Amino acid sequence: MEVDYKNIKVIGFDADDTLWVNETYFRDAEIEFGKLLSEYETINKIDQELFKKEIGNLDLYGYGVKAFTLSMVESALEISNYNVSSKTIESILNIGKEMLNKPVELLDGVEEVLKTLSKKYKLILATKGDLLDQERKLEKSGLTNYFHHIEVLSDKKEANYSKLLNHLDIKPSEFLMIGNSLKSDILPLVNIKAHAIHVPFHTTWAHEQVTEKETNGKAYKTLSSLIQILKILS
Amino acid sequence: MEVDYKNIKVIGFDADDTLWVNETYFRDAEIEFGKLLSEYETINKIDQELFKKEIGNLDLYGYGVKAFTLSMVESALEISNYNVSSKTIESILNIGKEMLNKPVELLDGVEEVLKTLSKKYKLILATKGDLLDQERKLEKSGLTNYFHHIEVLSDKKEANYSKLLNHLDIKPSEFLMIGNSLKSDILPLVNIKAHAIHVPFHTTWAHEQVTEKETNGKAYKTLSSLIQILKILS
Repeated sequence: MEVDYKNIKVIGFDADDTLWVNETYFRDAEIEFGKLLSEYETINKIDQELFKKEIGNLDLYGYGVKAFTLSMVESALEISNYNVSSKTIESILNIGKEMLNKPVELLDGVEEVLKTLSKKYKLILATKGDLLDQERKLEKSGLTNYFHHIEVLSDKKEANYSKLLNHLDIKPSEFLMIGNSLKSDILPLVNIKAHAIHVPFHTTWAHEQVTEKETNGKAYKTLSSLIQILKILS
Repeated sequence: MEVDYKNIKVIGFDADDTLWVNETYFRDAEIEFGKLLSEYETINKIDQELFKKEIGNLDLYGYGVKAFTLSMVESALEISNYNVSSKTIESILNIGKEMLNKPVELLDGVEEVLKTLSKKYKLILATKGDLLDQERKLEKSGLTNYFHHIEVLSDKKEANYSKLLNHLDIKPSEFLMIGNSLKSDILPLVNIKAHAIHVPFHTTWAHEQVTEKETNGKAYKTLSSLIQILKILS
Protein backbone atom coordinates (compact mmCIF):
# COMPACT_ATOMS: atom_id res chain seq x y z
CA MET A 1 0.00 0.00 0.00
CA GLU A 2 1.35 3.41 -0.95
CA VAL A 3 0.85 6.17 1.60
CA ASP A 4 1.24 9.81 0.77
CA TYR A 5 3.29 11.65 3.38
CA LYS A 6 3.55 14.99 1.57
CA ASN A 7 1.10 16.83 3.87
CA ILE A 8 2.93 15.96 7.08
CA LYS A 9 3.78 19.03 9.20
CA VAL A 10 4.38 17.58 12.64
CA ILE A 11 5.99 14.26 13.58
CA GLY A 12 5.36 12.80 17.01
CA PHE A 13 7.93 10.40 18.39
CA ASP A 14 7.18 7.99 21.16
CA ALA A 15 10.11 8.06 23.60
CA ASP A 16 10.49 4.83 25.57
CA ASP A 17 11.63 1.91 23.39
CA THR A 18 11.42 4.08 20.26
CA LEU A 19 14.28 6.51 20.96
CA TRP A 20 15.86 4.80 23.96
CA VAL A 21 15.80 1.54 25.94
CA ASN A 22 13.10 1.37 28.60
CA GLU A 23 11.12 -1.87 28.75
CA THR A 24 14.32 -3.80 29.43
CA TYR A 25 14.73 -1.84 32.69
CA PHE A 26 11.18 -2.74 33.76
CA ARG A 27 11.92 -6.43 33.01
CA ASP A 28 15.13 -6.20 35.08
CA ALA A 29 13.19 -4.57 37.91
CA GLU A 30 10.62 -7.38 37.85
CA ILE A 31 13.40 -9.94 38.13
CA GLU A 32 14.86 -8.12 41.16
CA PHE A 33 11.39 -7.85 42.69
CA GLY A 34 10.87 -11.60 42.17
CA LYS A 35 14.12 -12.39 43.97
CA LEU A 36 13.18 -10.19 46.95
CA LEU A 37 9.92 -12.13 47.42
CA SER A 38 11.08 -15.60 46.36
CA GLU A 39 10.62 -17.03 49.86
CA TYR A 40 6.85 -16.45 49.60
CA GLU A 41 5.86 -17.49 46.09
CA THR A 42 7.10 -18.86 42.76
CA ILE A 43 8.56 -16.34 40.34
CA ASN A 44 5.70 -16.94 37.91
CA LYS A 45 3.08 -16.22 40.52
CA ILE A 46 4.93 -13.09 41.69
CA ASP A 47 5.14 -11.78 38.09
CA GLN A 48 1.45 -12.47 37.60
CA GLU A 49 0.39 -10.78 40.86
CA LEU A 50 2.49 -7.69 40.13
CA PHE A 51 1.05 -7.40 36.62
CA LYS A 52 -2.50 -7.72 37.99
CA LYS A 53 -1.75 -5.02 40.55
CA GLU A 54 -0.32 -2.66 37.90
CA ILE A 55 -3.40 -3.06 35.72
CA GLY A 56 -5.69 -2.68 38.73
CA ASN A 57 -3.96 0.59 39.66
CA LEU A 58 -3.68 1.97 36.12
CA ASP A 59 -6.81 4.13 36.28
CA LEU A 60 -5.67 5.67 39.56
CA TYR A 61 -1.87 5.85 39.13
CA GLY A 62 -1.36 6.00 35.37
CA TYR A 63 1.96 5.01 33.77
CA GLY A 64 5.60 5.48 34.76
CA VAL A 65 8.12 4.45 37.37
CA LYS A 66 6.38 6.01 40.41
CA ALA A 67 3.17 4.14 39.62
CA PHE A 68 5.18 0.94 39.10
CA THR A 69 7.00 1.38 42.43
CA LEU A 70 3.76 1.91 44.35
CA SER A 71 2.32 -1.23 42.75
CA MET A 72 5.44 -3.21 43.69
CA VAL A 73 5.09 -2.13 47.34
CA GLU A 74 1.40 -3.04 47.42
CA SER A 75 2.04 -6.41 45.74
CA ALA A 76 4.82 -7.22 48.19
CA LEU A 77 2.46 -6.74 51.14
CA GLU A 78 -0.09 -9.11 49.63
CA ILE A 79 2.26 -11.72 48.17
CA SER A 80 3.98 -12.07 51.58
CA ASN A 81 0.63 -12.11 53.40
CA TYR A 82 1.85 -8.99 55.27
CA ASN A 83 5.05 -10.70 56.42
CA VAL A 84 7.44 -8.73 54.20
CA SER A 85 10.17 -6.92 56.17
CA SER A 86 10.74 -3.17 56.25
CA LYS A 87 14.17 -3.73 54.72
CA THR A 88 12.55 -5.43 51.72
CA ILE A 89 10.13 -2.51 51.32
CA GLU A 90 13.18 -0.24 51.31
CA SER A 91 14.82 -2.41 48.64
CA ILE A 92 11.68 -2.08 46.52
CA LEU A 93 11.75 1.72 46.83
CA ASN A 94 15.38 1.57 45.78
CA ILE A 95 14.55 -0.46 42.66
CA GLY A 96 12.30 2.45 41.63
CA LYS A 97 14.92 5.06 42.42
CA GLU A 98 17.54 3.18 40.41
CA MET A 99 15.19 3.07 37.43
CA LEU A 100 14.77 6.85 37.61
CA ASN A 101 18.53 7.29 37.79
CA LYS A 102 19.38 4.98 34.87
CA PRO A 103 21.53 6.41 32.07
CA VAL A 104 19.84 6.83 28.70
CA GLU A 105 20.80 4.29 26.05
CA LEU A 106 19.85 5.52 22.58
CA LEU A 107 18.58 3.05 20.00
CA ASP A 108 20.30 2.68 16.61
CA GLY A 109 20.10 5.57 14.18
CA VAL A 110 18.06 7.84 16.46
CA GLU A 111 20.33 10.87 16.32
CA GLU A 112 20.73 10.76 12.54
CA VAL A 113 16.98 10.42 12.00
CA LEU A 114 16.12 13.33 14.30
CA LYS A 115 18.85 15.54 12.90
CA THR A 116 17.61 15.02 9.34
CA LEU A 117 13.88 15.23 10.02
CA SER A 118 14.10 18.27 12.31
CA LYS A 119 15.24 20.34 9.34
CA LYS A 120 11.97 19.76 7.52
CA TYR A 121 9.34 18.99 10.18
CA LYS A 122 8.28 20.13 13.62
CA LEU A 123 9.17 17.23 15.91
CA ILE A 124 7.50 16.58 19.23
CA LEU A 125 8.03 13.92 21.86
CA ALA A 126 4.70 12.28 22.70
CA THR A 127 4.85 10.07 25.76
CA LYS A 128 2.65 8.76 28.54
CA GLY A 129 5.27 8.43 31.29
CA ASP A 130 5.95 10.98 34.03
CA LEU A 131 6.81 14.41 32.64
CA LEU A 132 9.75 14.92 35.03
CA ASP A 133 11.21 11.51 34.21
CA GLN A 134 10.80 12.04 30.45
CA GLU A 135 12.31 15.54 30.61
CA ARG A 136 15.26 14.13 32.52
CA LYS A 137 15.74 11.35 29.96
CA LEU A 138 15.50 13.80 27.07
CA GLU A 139 18.10 15.99 28.78
CA LYS A 140 20.46 13.03 29.34
CA SER A 141 19.94 11.87 25.75
CA GLY A 142 21.37 15.06 24.28
CA LEU A 143 18.41 15.17 21.84
CA THR A 144 16.61 18.17 23.36
CA ASN A 145 17.33 20.57 20.52
CA TYR A 146 15.67 18.41 17.88
CA PHE A 147 12.27 18.66 19.58
CA HIS A 148 9.89 21.60 19.66
CA HIS A 149 8.48 20.38 22.96
CA ILE A 150 7.31 17.35 24.98
CA GLU A 151 3.66 16.33 25.00
CA VAL A 152 2.76 14.14 27.95
CA LEU A 153 -0.49 12.26 27.40
CA SER A 154 -2.27 10.70 30.37
CA ASP A 155 -3.09 7.84 28.02
CA LYS A 156 -2.55 7.17 24.32
CA LYS A 157 -6.06 6.60 23.10
CA GLU A 158 -7.91 8.20 20.19
CA ALA A 159 -9.38 10.96 22.37
CA ASN A 160 -5.92 11.89 23.72
CA TYR A 161 -4.49 12.17 20.21
CA SER A 162 -7.49 14.16 18.97
CA LYS A 163 -6.93 16.62 21.81
CA LEU A 164 -3.24 16.79 20.90
CA LEU A 165 -4.00 17.60 17.24
CA ASN A 166 -6.48 20.24 18.35
CA HIS A 167 -3.84 21.72 20.62
CA LEU A 168 -1.27 21.69 17.79
CA ASP A 169 -3.89 23.26 15.49
CA ILE A 170 -3.29 20.72 12.69
CA LYS A 171 -5.39 18.21 10.75
CA PRO A 172 -4.96 14.44 11.23
CA SER A 173 -3.51 14.17 7.71
CA GLU A 174 -0.71 16.57 8.77
CA PHE A 175 0.44 14.42 11.68
CA LEU A 176 2.67 11.34 11.67
CA MET A 177 3.32 9.29 14.81
CA ILE A 178 6.33 6.98 15.08
CA GLY A 179 6.53 4.41 17.86
CA ASN A 180 7.06 0.86 19.03
CA SER A 181 3.62 0.14 20.48
CA LEU A 182 0.83 -0.87 18.10
CA LYS A 183 -1.72 -0.28 20.82
CA SER A 184 -0.51 3.16 21.91
CA ASP A 185 1.42 4.70 19.02
CA ILE A 186 -0.18 3.24 15.90
CA LEU A 187 -3.79 2.01 16.00
CA PRO A 188 -5.35 5.09 17.67
CA LEU A 189 -3.72 7.29 14.99
CA VAL A 190 -4.90 5.12 12.14
CA ASN A 191 -8.41 5.24 13.62
CA ILE A 192 -8.48 9.05 13.63
CA LYS A 193 -7.05 9.13 10.07
CA ALA A 194 -3.61 10.40 11.01
CA HIS A 195 -0.40 8.69 9.83
CA ALA A 196 1.55 6.14 11.85
CA ILE A 197 4.76 4.18 11.38
CA HIS A 198 5.54 1.19 13.58
CA VAL A 199 9.13 0.46 14.63
CA PRO A 200 8.96 -2.59 16.94
CA PHE A 201 11.23 -3.06 19.97
CA HIS A 202 12.26 -6.59 20.95
CA THR A 203 10.28 -6.54 24.22
CA THR A 204 6.67 -5.38 24.67
CA TRP A 205 4.84 -5.04 27.97
CA ALA A 206 1.91 -7.49 28.14
CA HIS A 207 -0.53 -4.59 28.56
CA GLU A 208 0.60 -3.12 25.22
CA GLN A 209 0.07 -6.29 23.21
CA VAL A 210 -2.67 -6.43 20.59
CA THR A 211 -4.25 -9.28 18.64
CA GLU A 212 -3.92 -9.83 14.92
CA LYS A 213 -7.63 -9.07 14.64
CA GLU A 214 -7.04 -5.53 15.89
CA THR A 215 -4.35 -4.77 13.31
CA ASN A 216 -6.03 -6.50 10.39
CA GLY A 217 -6.58 -4.15 7.44
CA LYS A 218 -5.23 -1.10 9.29
CA ALA A 219 -3.18 1.32 7.21
CA TYR A 220 0.26 1.69 8.78
CA LYS A 221 3.82 0.85 7.78
CA THR A 222 6.21 -1.26 9.83
CA LEU A 223 9.95 -0.67 9.70
CA SER A 224 12.54 -3.00 11.20
CA SER A 225 14.73 -0.06 12.23
CA LEU A 226 14.18 3.65 12.73
CA ILE A 227 16.86 4.65 10.21
CA GLN A 228 14.71 3.32 7.33
CA ILE A 229 12.34 6.21 7.86
CA LEU A 230 14.78 8.47 6.03
CA LYS A 231 14.05 6.58 2.81
CA ILE A 232 10.35 7.38 3.20
CA LEU A 233 10.54 10.99 4.38
CA SER A 234 13.49 12.62 2.74
CA MET B 1 1.01 50.71 40.24
CA GLU B 2 -1.01 50.58 37.02
CA VAL B 3 -0.46 47.57 34.80
CA ASP B 4 -1.62 47.43 31.23
CA TYR B 5 -3.39 44.15 30.43
CA LYS B 6 -4.56 45.06 26.94
CA ASN B 7 -2.04 42.83 25.11
CA ILE B 8 -3.00 39.64 26.96
CA LYS B 9 -3.88 36.75 24.63
CA VAL B 10 -3.48 33.69 26.84
CA ILE B 11 -4.28 33.33 30.54
CA GLY B 12 -2.71 30.49 32.49
CA PHE B 13 -4.50 29.30 35.60
CA ASP B 14 -2.78 27.36 38.31
CA ALA B 15 -5.12 24.53 39.35
CA ASP B 16 -4.51 23.34 42.93
CA ASP B 17 -5.59 25.94 45.51
CA THR B 18 -6.40 28.43 42.77
CA LEU B 19 -9.41 26.71 41.18
CA TRP B 20 -10.03 24.00 43.77
CA VAL B 21 -9.00 22.90 47.27
CA ASN B 22 -5.80 20.84 47.40
CA GLU B 23 -3.33 21.80 50.12
CA THR B 24 -5.96 21.07 52.78
CA TYR B 25 -5.97 17.42 51.66
CA PHE B 26 -2.18 17.21 52.00
CA ARG B 27 -2.44 18.68 55.53
CA ASP B 28 -5.14 16.11 56.39
CA ALA B 29 -2.93 13.33 54.99
CA GLU B 30 0.00 14.49 57.13
CA ILE B 31 -2.21 14.36 60.22
CA GLU B 32 -3.28 10.79 59.38
CA PHE B 33 0.35 9.85 58.71
CA GLY B 34 1.36 11.31 62.09
CA LYS B 35 -1.27 9.24 63.89
CA LEU B 36 -0.10 6.03 62.20
CA LEU B 37 3.46 6.59 63.46
CA SER B 38 2.70 8.23 66.81
CA GLU B 39 4.12 5.31 68.80
CA TYR B 40 7.61 6.05 67.38
CA GLU B 41 7.99 9.83 67.46
CA THR B 42 6.32 13.13 68.37
CA ILE B 43 3.96 14.59 65.78
CA ASN B 44 6.31 17.53 65.26
CA LYS B 45 9.28 15.32 64.55
CA ILE B 46 7.22 13.14 62.17
CA ASP B 47 6.05 16.22 60.23
CA GLN B 48 9.60 17.49 60.02
CA GLU B 49 11.04 14.15 58.83
CA LEU B 50 8.35 13.76 56.17
CA PHE B 51 8.94 17.28 54.89
CA LYS B 52 12.71 16.65 54.72
CA LYS B 53 12.08 13.43 52.82
CA GLU B 54 9.75 15.16 50.33
CA ILE B 55 12.32 17.86 49.62
CA GLY B 56 15.09 15.27 49.37
CA ASN B 57 13.08 13.30 46.79
CA LEU B 58 11.83 16.31 44.82
CA ASP B 59 14.52 16.16 42.13
CA LEU B 60 13.85 12.47 41.56
CA TYR B 61 10.09 12.19 42.08
CA GLY B 62 8.77 15.67 41.30
CA TYR B 63 5.40 16.88 42.62
CA GLY B 64 2.03 15.23 43.13
CA VAL B 65 0.32 12.55 45.17
CA LYS B 66 2.37 9.57 43.94
CA ALA B 67 5.62 11.30 44.90
CA PHE B 68 4.11 12.23 48.27
CA THR B 69 2.98 8.63 48.90
CA LEU B 70 6.42 7.21 48.10
CA SER B 71 8.00 9.74 50.47
CA MET B 72 5.52 8.79 53.22
CA VAL B 73 6.45 5.09 52.86
CA GLU B 74 10.16 5.86 52.96
CA SER B 75 9.76 8.16 55.98
CA ALA B 76 7.73 5.53 57.83
CA LEU B 77 10.55 3.00 57.48
CA GLU B 78 13.09 5.43 58.89
CA ILE B 79 10.94 7.06 61.61
CA SER B 80 10.06 3.59 62.98
CA ASN B 81 13.66 2.42 62.70
CA TYR B 82 12.37 -0.32 60.35
CA ASN B 83 9.81 -1.55 62.87
CA VAL B 84 6.70 -0.30 61.05
CA SER B 85 4.20 -3.06 60.29
CA SER B 86 3.04 -4.13 56.84
CA LYS B 87 -0.49 -3.11 57.79
CA THR B 88 0.73 0.44 58.48
CA ILE B 89 2.47 0.54 55.07
CA GLU B 90 -0.83 -0.52 53.55
CA SER B 91 -2.62 2.28 55.43
CA ILE B 92 -0.10 4.76 54.03
CA LEU B 93 -0.72 3.55 50.46
CA ASN B 94 -4.43 3.97 51.17
CA ILE B 95 -3.94 7.59 52.30
CA GLY B 96 -2.48 8.25 48.83
CA LYS B 97 -5.28 6.43 47.03
CA GLU B 98 -7.90 8.36 49.00
CA MET B 99 -6.23 11.64 48.00
CA LEU B 100 -6.42 10.64 44.33
CA ASN B 101 -10.09 9.73 44.74
CA LYS B 102 -11.13 12.93 46.54
CA PRO B 103 -14.02 14.90 45.08
CA VAL B 104 -13.18 18.31 43.62
CA GLU B 105 -14.24 21.29 45.71
CA LEU B 106 -14.27 24.48 43.62
CA LEU B 107 -13.17 27.76 45.21
CA ASP B 108 -15.48 30.79 45.25
CA GLY B 109 -16.28 32.47 41.94
CA VAL B 110 -14.22 30.08 39.79
CA GLU B 111 -16.93 29.11 37.34
CA GLU B 112 -18.10 32.69 36.79
CA VAL B 113 -14.56 33.92 36.21
CA LEU B 114 -13.73 31.15 33.70
CA LYS B 115 -17.03 31.52 31.89
CA THR B 116 -16.49 35.25 31.42
CA LEU B 117 -12.80 35.17 30.56
CA SER B 118 -13.03 32.22 28.16
CA LYS B 119 -15.12 34.38 25.82
CA LYS B 120 -12.25 36.81 25.33
CA TYR B 121 -9.03 34.88 26.03
CA LYS B 122 -7.46 31.48 25.41
CA LEU B 123 -7.37 29.85 28.83
CA ILE B 124 -4.93 27.10 29.77
CA LEU B 125 -4.45 25.14 32.96
CA ALA B 126 -0.77 25.28 34.01
CA THR B 127 0.08 22.85 36.77
CA LYS B 128 3.00 20.88 38.13
CA GLY B 129 1.10 17.89 39.56
CA ASP B 130 0.60 14.55 37.82
CA LEU B 131 -1.09 14.92 34.44
CA LEU B 132 -3.50 12.02 35.04
CA ASP B 133 -4.52 13.37 38.44
CA GLN B 134 -5.01 16.90 37.09
CA GLU B 135 -7.01 15.66 34.09
CA ARG B 136 -9.20 13.68 36.45
CA LYS B 137 -9.73 16.72 38.69
CA LEU B 138 -10.53 18.93 35.71
CA GLU B 139 -13.06 16.34 34.51
CA LYS B 140 -14.69 16.11 37.95
CA SER B 141 -14.75 19.92 38.23
CA GLY B 142 -16.97 20.33 35.17
CA LEU B 143 -14.66 23.13 33.96
CA THR B 144 -13.11 21.25 31.01
CA ASN B 145 -14.81 23.28 28.29
CA TYR B 146 -13.39 26.59 29.48
CA PHE B 147 -9.79 25.48 28.86
CA HIS B 148 -7.97 25.08 25.57
CA HIS B 149 -5.70 22.46 27.09
CA ILE B 150 -3.66 21.46 30.16
CA GLU B 151 0.04 22.27 30.39
CA VAL B 152 1.89 20.13 32.90
CA LEU B 153 5.21 21.66 33.89
CA SER B 154 7.82 19.49 35.62
CA ASP B 155 8.57 22.57 37.71
CA LYS B 156 7.39 26.16 37.71
CA LYS B 157 10.61 28.07 37.28
CA GLU B 158 11.52 30.77 34.78
CA ALA B 159 12.93 28.26 32.25
CA ASN B 160 9.73 26.18 32.37
CA TYR B 161 7.56 29.23 31.70
CA SER B 162 9.85 30.45 28.91
CA LYS B 163 9.50 27.05 27.24
CA LEU B 164 5.73 27.27 27.67
CA LEU B 165 5.57 30.70 25.99
CA ASN B 166 7.72 29.43 23.17
CA HIS B 167 5.43 26.47 22.76
CA LEU B 168 2.37 28.75 22.76
CA ASP B 169 4.12 31.01 20.24
CA ILE B 170 3.40 34.19 22.24
CA LYS B 171 5.43 36.98 23.80
CA PRO B 172 5.74 37.35 27.60
CA SER B 173 3.65 40.54 27.46
CA GLU B 174 0.78 38.50 25.97
CA PHE B 175 0.64 36.03 28.85
CA LEU B 176 -1.01 36.40 32.25
CA MET B 177 -0.62 33.77 34.98
CA ILE B 178 -3.07 33.56 37.87
CA GLY B 179 -2.27 31.47 40.93
CA ASN B 180 -1.93 31.13 44.68
CA SER B 181 1.81 30.49 44.94
CA LEU B 182 4.17 33.48 44.85
CA LYS B 183 7.10 31.16 44.29
CA SER B 184 5.58 29.09 41.47
CA ASP B 185 2.87 31.16 39.83
CA ILE B 186 4.00 34.76 40.27
CA LEU B 187 7.70 35.55 40.71
CA PRO B 188 9.05 33.49 37.77
CA LEU B 189 6.54 35.25 35.46
CA VAL B 190 7.44 38.70 36.72
CA ASN B 191 11.10 37.85 36.17
CA ILE B 192 10.54 36.94 32.51
CA LYS B 193 8.39 40.09 32.02
CA ALA B 194 5.06 38.29 31.71
CA HIS B 195 2.02 39.29 33.78
CA ALA B 196 0.98 37.63 37.04
CA ILE B 197 -1.88 38.04 39.49
CA HIS B 198 -1.67 36.53 42.95
CA VAL B 199 -4.78 35.09 44.62
CA PRO B 200 -3.61 33.63 47.97
CA PHE B 201 -5.09 30.47 49.50
CA HIS B 202 -5.29 30.21 53.30
CA THR B 203 -2.70 27.40 53.50
CA THR B 204 0.68 27.29 51.73
CA TRP B 205 3.07 24.34 51.67
CA ALA B 206 6.34 25.28 53.44
CA HIS B 207 8.29 24.57 50.25
CA GLU B 208 6.26 27.24 48.40
CA GLN B 209 6.87 30.00 50.91
CA VAL B 210 8.99 33.01 49.95
CA THR B 211 10.56 35.81 51.96
CA GLU B 212 9.56 39.44 51.80
CA LYS B 213 12.93 40.17 50.25
CA GLU B 214 12.06 38.04 47.23
CA THR B 215 8.79 39.85 46.55
CA ASN B 216 10.09 43.35 47.27
CA GLY B 217 9.62 45.70 44.31
CA LYS B 218 8.19 42.99 42.05
CA ALA B 219 5.37 44.05 39.74
CA TYR B 220 2.33 41.87 40.41
CA LYS B 221 -1.16 42.43 41.76
CA THR B 222 -2.69 40.58 44.70
CA LEU B 223 -6.43 39.94 44.88
CA SER B 224 -8.20 38.63 47.94
CA SER B 225 -10.59 36.58 45.80
CA LEU B 226 -10.58 35.30 42.23
CA ILE B 227 -13.85 37.02 41.33
CA GLN B 228 -12.17 40.44 41.59
CA ILE B 229 -10.27 39.66 38.43
CA LEU B 230 -13.37 40.45 36.41
CA LYS B 231 -13.02 44.10 37.41
CA ILE B 232 -9.50 44.17 35.96
CA LEU B 233 -10.04 42.14 32.79
CA SER B 234 -13.51 42.84 31.52
